[in-house]
Amino acid sequence: MYTEHPPDAEYMRLALSEAARGVGRTTPNPPVGCVIVQGGQVMGRGFHPRAGEPHAEVFALREAGEQARGATAYVTLEPCSHFGRTPPCVDALIAAGVARVVIAALDPNPRVGGQGASRLRAAGIDVTVGVAEEQAVHQQAGFRSLVMRGRPWVIYKYAMTLDGKVAALDTSGRSEANGLVTGLASRARVMAWRNEVDGIAVGSGTVTTDDPLLTTRGVEGGRDPRPVVFDGQGRTSASARVIRPGTVVVTAPGMDLSTHEAAGAQVIYAAQPREALTELGRLNFSTLFVEGGPTLAGSLLNAGLVDEVRAFVAPKLLGAGLNPLTGPLRPMREAQVLRDVTFEPLGADLLVRGLLNDIPRLNAGGAN
Amino acid sequence: MYTEHPPDAEYMRLALSEAARGVGRTTPNPPVGCVIVQGGQVMGRGFHPRAGEPHAEVFALREAGEQARGATAYVTLEPCSHFGRTPPCVDALIAAGVARVVIAALDPNPRVGGQGASRLRAAGIDVTVGVAEEQAVHQQAGFRSLVMRGRPWVIYKYAMTLDGKVAALDTSGRSEANGLVTGLASRARVMAWRNEVDGIAVGSGTVTTDDPLLTTRGVEGGRDPRPVVFDGQGRTSASARVIRPGTVVVTAPGMDLSTHEAAGAQVIYAAQPREALTELGRLNFSTLFVEGGPTLAGSLLNAGLVDEVRAFVAPKLLGAGLNPLTGPLRPMREAQVLRDVTFEPLGADLLVRGLLNDIPRLNAGGAN
Repeated sequence: MYTEHPPDAEYMRLALSEAARGVGRTTPNPPVGCVIVQGGQVMGRGFHPRAGEPHAEVFALREAGEQARGATAYVTLEPCSHFGRTPPCVDALIAAGVARVVIAALDPNPRVGGQGASRLRAAGIDVTVGVAEEQAVHQQAGFRSLVMRGRPWVIYKYAMTLDGKVAALDTSGRSEANGLVTGLASRARVMAWRNEVDGIAVGSGTVTTDDPLLTTRGVEGGRDPRPVVFDGQGRTSASARVIRPGTVVVTAPGMDLSTHEAAGAQVIYAAQPREALTELGRLNFSTLFVEGGPTLAGSLLNAGLVDEVRAFVAPKLLGAGLNPLTGPLRPMREAQVLRDVTFEPLGADLLVRGLLNDIPRLNAGGAN
Repeated sequence: MYTEHPPDAEYMRLALSEAARGVGRTTPNPPVGCVIVQGGQVMGRGFHPRAGEPHAEVFALREAGEQARGATAYVTLEPCSHFGRTPPCVDALIAAGVARVVIAALDPNPRVGGQGASRLRAAGIDVTVGVAEEQAVHQQAGFRSLVMRGRPWVIYKYAMTLDGKVAALDTSGRSEANGLVTGLASRARVMAWRNEVDGIAVGSGTVTTDDPLLTTRGVEGGRDPRPVVFDGQGRTSASARVIRPGTVVVTAPGMDLSTHEAAGAQVIYAAQPREALTELGRLNFSTLFVEGGPTLAGSLLNAGLVDEVRAFVAPKLLGAGLNPLTGPLRPMREAQVLRDVTFEPLGADLLVRGLLNDIPRLNAGGAN
């Protein structure tokens, strides 16, 4: 089908750009974008800005008005066919008289996945599924993780030297506070990512060493993700800058972190990393951006809970320092191998990205 | 001048390709290539195959024959103006009647640098200097290092995981023997490099753990570099596969490695890494390819003796393992920063290259 409609991928890229405007704002809903095309002209665009507001299709159809009749709608996620907080988008598309709907990816929810496409087809609309599917699925990773696995999509971000050091150490083994590994371009990219995620996770060591704010800085229209502090043993000070309203502190059952609660943080209890992520899923964290340190990252990695890696490599050699990960000894053949790897130069640095887990998607049979 | 002759760089690239055929064979001479161009046509090509054999210009002029008259000669290094083992190439170029000589880089030797160009100009030949100079200087790094510094150009090559591990460790801290970090393409590249260097250096730990051969395998027409084993404390076994005729063992003054000598190895003595490199310079090592391990690389790095870094990064995470370098603690701002950094994907891996020291070249004033 794709080859019959050569420009489909181009319009879908436009729809994905629309969707991107909502990334990080729509949880627990997915980011979705839509463009309405008639005779090669874009008649309407829309994106889902946040939960409770109209879906992308509604904004795009509004803008297209009468030009939607006989047009093609490009939607990054299968239009909904059920009443949620808003009426079904499938009905809106049918009512607007669109002739064709191109869908990047089916809804991953087994209860509704495929039904939107079926209902459109039943109404005589030509439906194409799977255009730019990989990009769409990646953009929806958080939503898909939350719906299908009940926990956030976990991204481990770190920056290391070319000899694999994320921080310098002093003679007592303490890591240097705020020693910069990467350049401006890489640090700006991290800020752009903070603007796109629901939560930033750090361990107690990072809080103690760096006293980070974990806010989004230098991004126009940016908003701050919620900090998530993993502090199983209650090592952090309640006066750390990150202990504030909006912050979640994950600690072990039985710990008393009432001073952190008094400082406005929400304290949750989990004995294991997986349990912690499930609790964060209950709090509607769809994406969790792990910014350090090695102990937290290592415990998530070793439990198979790191879904994606974004590693900056700075072309310099330190010699001794803190490693990006702690973990048990294992032979090289048992290293965890990244998939869908991309390399991107950023200033003097290099960004390496890849996946460790599959992004959840609807199986052919509708079950998962 | 460069802009007045637009195709100069193209012909010089051809001359550099010619020169490349001699890389690793010409020590203590430089690899040099030459092409003779008349009316846009290449009339002759040549390269210096090894010390004692004719220079590149001679082969190229021979092939060009009478077509050299009025032609342009592209040479990757300033033609020699003095009698060595062969007569001066400057005389040969003048005698052949070439009208113009394009030189990539001047001879770095302060005693002769610039004199070849001067003598050509004095004979009425148009001379251009500096076309594709950076590539030429890099190709001649070993020769330049030997002539100007009396020691080999040192390249540290290593392969690490995306969390900075060059080998897995067992519970007693020993590194896993021959655990593969990178894929086929990266390993083939290492073999190509072995074919281009005078020596491969390893520390006693690598010999003990891996018992490597350090030969060039899978390269058509390849030849083996000389192994150089840094074994200050005499830890290696004389029955290790690398202890053989042609191998140099560097040890501390006073050590008795007569069993290694009995196995055919040449033993040299040095108290410090810099002294060791000077000794290797005396043995005409112009390039030394350091393949491991972290202790040897760290001691060279910390003495400022690593000139170039070639690091493979494999997109996988190990968690615990051997670091690429040992070294003293220092703050991040004192990390050694690579210059002229390039990134190259190789199979699933990424190759990062860069310089830590400048390649020696002739100063404007002729002094260094």
